[in-house]
Amino acid sequence: MLDHTATGVFVIAPTPFHEDGRIDQGSIDRMVDAFAAAGVAGVTVLGMMGEAPKLDAEEALAVARQVVRRAGRLPVVVGVSAPGFAAMRSLARTSMEAGAAGVMIAPPPSLRTDDQIVGYFSQASEAIGRDIPFVLQDYPLALGVVMTPAVIRRIVEANPACVMLKHEDWPGLDKITALRAFQGEGGLRPFSILTGNGGLFLDLELERGADGAMTGYGFPDMLVDLVRLSAEGRREAAQDLFDAHLPLIRYEQQPGIGLAVRKYVLRRRGIIGTETQRRPAVALSPASRAEVDYLLARLARWDGRAAGLAP
Amino acid sequence: MLDHTATGVFVIAPTPFHEDGRIDQGSIDRMVDAFAAAGVAGVTVLGMMGEAPKLDAEEALAVARQVVRRAGRLPVVVGVSAPGFAAMRSLARTSMEAGAAGVMIAPPPSLRTDDQIVGYFSQASEAIGRDIPFVLQDYPLALGVVMTPAVIRRIVEANPACVMLKHEDWPGLDKITALRAFQGEGGLRPFSILTGNGGLFLDLELERGADGAMTGYGFPDMLVDLVRLSAEGRREAAQDLFDAHLPLIRYEQQPGIGLAVRKYVLRRRGIIGTETQRRPAVALSPASRAEVDYLLARLARWDGRAAGLAP
Amino acid sequence: MLDHTATGVFVIAPTPFHEDGRIDQGSIDRMVDAFAAAGVAGVTVLGMMGEAPKLDAEEALAVARQVVRRAGRLPVVVGVSAPGFAAMRSLARTSMEAGAAGVMIAPPPSLRTDDQIVGYFSQASEAIGRDIPFVLQDYPLALGVVMTPAVIRRIVEANPACVMLKHEDWPGLDKITALRAFQGEGGLRPFSILTGNGGLFLDLELERGADGAMTGYGFPDMLVDLVRLSAEGRREAAQDLFDAHLPLIRYEQQPGIGLAVRKYVLRRRGIIGTETQRRPAVALSPASRAEVDYLLARLARWDGRAAGLAP
Amino acid sequence: MLDHTATGVFVIAPTPFHEDGRIDQGSIDRMVDAFAAAGVAGVTVLGMMGEAPKLDAEEALAVARQVVRRAGRLPVVVGVSAPGFAAMRSLARTSMEAGAAGVMIAPPPSLRTDDQIVGYFSQASEAIGRDIPFVLQDYPLALGVVMTPAVIRRIVEANPACVMLKHEDWPGLDKITALRAFQGEGGLRPFSILTGNGGLFLDLELERGADGAMTGYGFPDMLVDLVRLSAEGRREAAQDLFDAHLPLIRYEQQPGIGLAVRKYVLRRRGIIGTETQRRPAVALSPASRAEVDYLLARLARWDGRAAGLAP
Repeated sequence: MLDHTATGVFVIAPTPFHEDGRIDQGSIDRMVDAFAAAGVAGVTVLGMMGEAPKLDAEEALAVARQVVRRAGRLPVVVGVSAPGFAAMRSLARTSMEAGAAGVMIAPPPSLRTDDQIVGYFSQASEAIGRDIPFVLQDYPLALGVVMTPAVIRRIVEANPACVMLKHEDWPGLDKITALRAFQGEGGLRPFSILTGNGGLFLDLELERGADGAMTGYGFPDMLVDLVRLSAEGRREAAQDLFDAHLPLIRYEQQPGIGLAVRKYVLRRRGIIGTETQRRPAVALSPASRAEVDYLLARLARWDGRAAGLAP
Repeated sequence: MLDHTATGVFVIAPTPFHEDGRIDQGSIDRMVDAFAAAGVAGVTVLGMMGEAPKLDAEEALAVARQVVRRAGRLPVVVGVSAPGFAAMRSLARTSMEAGAAGVMIAPPPSLRTDDQIVGYFSQASEAIGRDIPFVLQDYPLALGVVMTPAVIRRIVEANPACVMLKHEDWPGLDKITALRAFQGEGGLRPFSILTGNGGLFLDLELERGADGAMTGYGFPDMLVDLVRLSAEGRREAAQDLFDAHLPLIRYEQQPGIGLAVRKYVLRRRGIIGTETQRRPAVALSPASRAEVDYLLARLARWDGRAAGLAP
Repeated sequence: MLDHTATGVFVIAPTPFHEDGRIDQGSIDRMVDAFAAAGVAGVTVLGMMGEAPKLDAEEALAVARQVVRRAGRLPVVVGVSAPGFAAMRSLARTSMEAGAAGVMIAPPPSLRTDDQIVGYFSQASEAIGRDIPFVLQDYPLALGVVMTPAVIRRIVEANPACVMLKHEDWPGLDKITALRAFQGEGGLRPFSILTGNGGLFLDLELERGADGAMTGYGFPDMLVDLVRLSAEGRREAAQDLFDAHLPLIRYEQQPGIGLAVRKYVLRRRGIIGTETQRRPAVALSPASRAEVDYLLARLARWDGRAAGLAP
Repeated sequence: MLDHTATGVFVIAPTPFHEDGRIDQGSIDRMVDAFAAAGVAGVTVLGMMGEAPKLDAEEALAVARQVVRRAGRLPVVVGVSAPGFAAMRSLARTSMEAGAAGVMIAPPPSLRTDDQIVGYFSQASEAIGRDIPFVLQDYPLALGVVMTPAVIRRIVEANPACVMLKHEDWPGLDKITALRAFQGEGGLRPFSILTGNGGLFLDLELERGADGAMTGYGFPDMLVDLVRLSAEGRREAAQDLFDAHLPLIRYEQQPGIGLAVRKYVLRRRGIIGTETQRRPAVALSPASRAEVDYLLARLARWDGRAAGLAP
C-alpha cells in the first residue's frame, strides 16, 4: 500500500496501442519490465499521458490489472479521475482489489474557490473509500484549478488517505518550500511529494524538498539516476546529467505533441512496439521527428543510453 | 431511427435516484409514462442535466435500456458525450442495439478553432459508426466551444448522420435564422433544430424556425402546448402561456441549482420519487424552496397544472 | 460620499455616441435628466455596459465629469476597473475630485484563489487611496472570478472603504442570504447590496435582503417602482409589475446583444439620440428588432410607459 | 518604418522602475544603450513583459517616446493592445508621430471563432490607420486565442499593414513550417516571423524558418549570437551556445515569476537599476534568487557574459 514514505521515480506509463488502435498487451509487459530494470520505485497508469480518457471502462481496468500483475512487488498507482464519483469508485475499488498500491485523483476543471476544492477531495475520498490511499494531483496548467499551499494543507489534514502530492504547478518551486515549511513547523503531517511537468524542473525540485518524480519522460532511467545523485548530495553531477537531457525534456514538454515525442523515443528504445495514439491525437510531423533525432544524436555524445536511437 | 424531420418536444430526462443514491427504476418508468402522457415527441437521456457523468458505464447503459424499453414507440436519444471515442462508441452502439433512435454528442471544452471543431465531429461520427444518427449539441455557455453557423454547416455537410441540432447558444436567435437561410438558399440539406436553454427563449425560437424544444423544464406538457400553439399560428395564445411560466423557467435556468429546482418540481408533480442528486450537487436551500413554492402558487392561478403543488 | 446606507436604484448609464462614434454630450445630459426624473437613487458610469473599455483615458474622464455635473445632488459611481493600478488610480482620484460619490472595482479575470482575490482588493484600495469609497463588483459569469460569501466578508473586513457590493452572481440568491446572516450574527459590519444581472432576479433579490438594484434595464423607472413596492411590503403588486416586464428583461439579458437592446429601448423612449455602439459591437438584426418591438407592444398593455414605443 | 524584411532580435524591453514605483528614466536610457551595444535589430516596448497594463496612458506614451528617442536609428515597436480601439488608436498614432517604427497588437481573450479573430484585426488596423505597420501577436498560452496557420493567412491577406508575426504559440514549430509553406507555394505574401516564448525553442525555430526572435531573455546578446550563428549555417555552434543557456532560459520562462528573474538578471548585469515591479507582482523568494545565482554561476563557465553576476 502506498504511504507517505514513497520516494524515487514513479514513472507515468503510456498506454501502448497496436497500429489499429487495439491495446498492445505485449508492449505493456515489455514496458513494465523495462521500467523495473530502470530502477523506478513505482509505476503510474491511466494518467493523462496514459490516454486514460480514450479507454472505455473495461479497457481501463484491463490495463490496470495487467500492469499490476506484471509489476510484481513494484507499487502501481492507478489514475481514477473521472467526471463523477460512481466511475471513480468503480475503477478505484476494482484496481485495489487487483493489487494496486493506491490511486491518483485530479480536480475537475469546474472547481474555483478554495472551499470547492477542499470539499471535492473530501467527497472523492469518501466516495472511493477512506481506506484507499490516494495521490492528490495539482496541475493548474492543464486543469485550471489553482491550489495554494494552504489549500493543500487543508486537503491533507481532512483526508488521512491522502499520502502523496503529485506536484505539477508551474511555477511551483516555492510551493514545495512552503509545504515543507508547514511540515517543519510541525503543523502538517508528512506526505510524499513527487513532481511532474515532464521533469522540466526536477533538478531544482529535488533541492527544494521533493521526494522524487512522477513523470514519464522517455528516459526514466535518467530520472532515477538524477534522484539518486541528488540524494547523495552530488549536485553538480546531477545538474550535468540534467542539463544534457534538458533540450529533449524541453521538447517533450510541449503540450499536445509531448506524448507523441515520448512514444517515439520509447519505441526507438525498443520499450513499446508502435507510436500509435488513439484519436484525437497529434502525430509527429517529419520535421518534428528530425528534430527529436537531432536532439537524440546530440544527447548520445553525453549519455550512452541515447546512442543509436536516431535512425 | 431519428431523422431530420423530427419536431416537437424531446424532453431531457433527469436520472431519478433513491435517497441513498441508487438509481430509482420505479421512478424511471413512472417518469417515462408521464412524459408520454404529456405528448412529448421523444425522450433524451444521459444529457448533462441527466447527471450522466455521475453514472458508471454499466449504470448509464442500464438507464438507457430501461428508458428505451418503457418508451415503446417514442424515440429515445442517448447522450454519449465522453472524454474519448472508445467510451463514446461503447455506449452509442450498445444503446442503438437496445433500440435507441439516435445519440447526442457535445464537443469537448478543449476545442478552439473552427477546424478542430469540424474535425472532432467527423472523428466522432466515424468512431461510433456512420450509420448512427446523431444530434449535434451546441452549448457554448456550458462548454466554452463556439460554433458559427458556417461551422455547423460544415459539420452537417461532412456528416450525413448529423440529423439534428440541439441549439443552446445564448444569444442564439439569429443563429437559427442564419441556418434556416442557408437552407432556404438551397445551400444546406434539411436538419431538425430543437432548442435548449431550459426553454428561456422558446417563444421566440419557434418563430425563428426551430422545430421544437429539447429541454427538461419541469412542465414538459406546457412546452408541448407551446409548440403546438405556435405551429397553429396562435402566437398570442402561445406567448400568454409562455409568459405565465417565464418566472419559473427563469428560476430553473440558474446554473448549478437548476437541476435541483427541476427535480423538486417533478417530485411535487408525482413524476419522480425523490429530489436526490448524486454528489457533487447543490441542494435547494429552504429559502429557494419557498421561492419555487411561491412561483408555483402564482403560476397555479393561470395554469391548472401547477395547482396544489406548493405545500 | 457613498456609504453603506445606500438603497434604491443606481442606474448603470450607457455611454451615448453619435453615429460616427463621437461621444454624444447632448444625450448624456438628457439621459441623466431622465434618470433623475425616474427617481433613481444614483447613477453608475463607465461600467461594462457603459462601454468603458472603448473610451480612451481622456474620454472616460470627460464622461464621468459631465455626468457628475449634470446629476447635481444625485450620487455618481464611476467604474474604474483597469488592467493596472496606475490607470485605476488616475481615473479614481480625478473622478472624486470632480465630485463623484465613489468608484466601482471589478476583479481581473486572472484571479483564482481566495487569497489572490482578497489580496487584489486590498492592493486596489491602497492604490486609489483608502479614503475613496468603493463598490465591490461580484460578477462571475462575465469575469470568471468566483467569490464565496466568506471571501466577500474578508474583503469587507480588510477594507473600510468597501461600502457596497454590486451583486451579480448567478445563481446568487443564497449568497445574499448568507451575507445578511453574517451581519445578523454581528460578525460583519453593514454594507449596501445592490444587484445586477439586468434585473433578472430582482423580484427575489429584494426579498432576500438586497437594498436595491444597480443595473441598466431600459425601464429604470420600473425598477424604482419595484424597489418601492417591495419596500412597502406589497409583494404581489411588485411581482405583477416584474412579471409584465420579465419577457423584455430576459431578452435584454442576452450576452452580447443586451446592450444593443438597451440602447434601442432608450432611443425609442427618447432618452438617447442613437443606438450607436463603438466597435467591436453586435448590432440588432431586423428580426431581433421586430422581437423587441413585439415584446414592447405586449408590455404596453400592462405598463403605459411602453405605449407607443414600437414603430 | 517596420516592414516584412525585418530579421534579427527585437528585444522586449521591460519597464524599469525606481523602488517607489516611479518610472526610472535613467535606467531606460542605459537599457536602450545596452541593447544597442548587444547588436539587437530593434526594441519592443509596452509588451506584456513590459508591464504595459500597469502604466497609465501618459506614462505609456512617455516610455514609448523616451525609448524611440534614445534608440536613434534602431526601430522601435510599441505594444498598443488595449481593451478598446480608442485607447489603441491614441497610443498607436502618438507613438508613430514620436518616431516608432510600428505597433504590436494582441487579440483580446474573448475571441473564439476564426471569423471573430480575423474580423478583430481588420477592425483594429482600420481603427489605428491602415498606414501603420503592425505586428500580429500570436500567444495562445497567455491569451487563450488560438489562430491556425489558415487564420493567420487570412489576417495577413486582409491587412497590408500586417508585416510581422510575433510567434508565441506552444507548440508552434509546425506552425512556422506551415506558414512558410504557404509562402513557398506563392499563396501568401512575405512577412517577418520573430519568435517569443522567452527563447525556449529559438534553436529550432530558426531552423524552421523564423527570421529571428522577439523576446526579452536577460541575455539578448546571446540571442543575437544565436541568430547570427544559425544564419551562418553553424548549427552545432548555435546549439552548443543555446544549450548552455537553456537551464536559465527555462527558469525565466516560468509564468508569473519570469519577469522577476529577467529584471534580476538585468540588474545584476548593470543594465537596469532595480528589480522593482509595479503591483500586482510576484517577487523572487530567497530560494529562487539562490537558484538563479546557481544557474548563472554554472553558465559563467561556458559564457563569459555570465561571469561575476552571482553575488
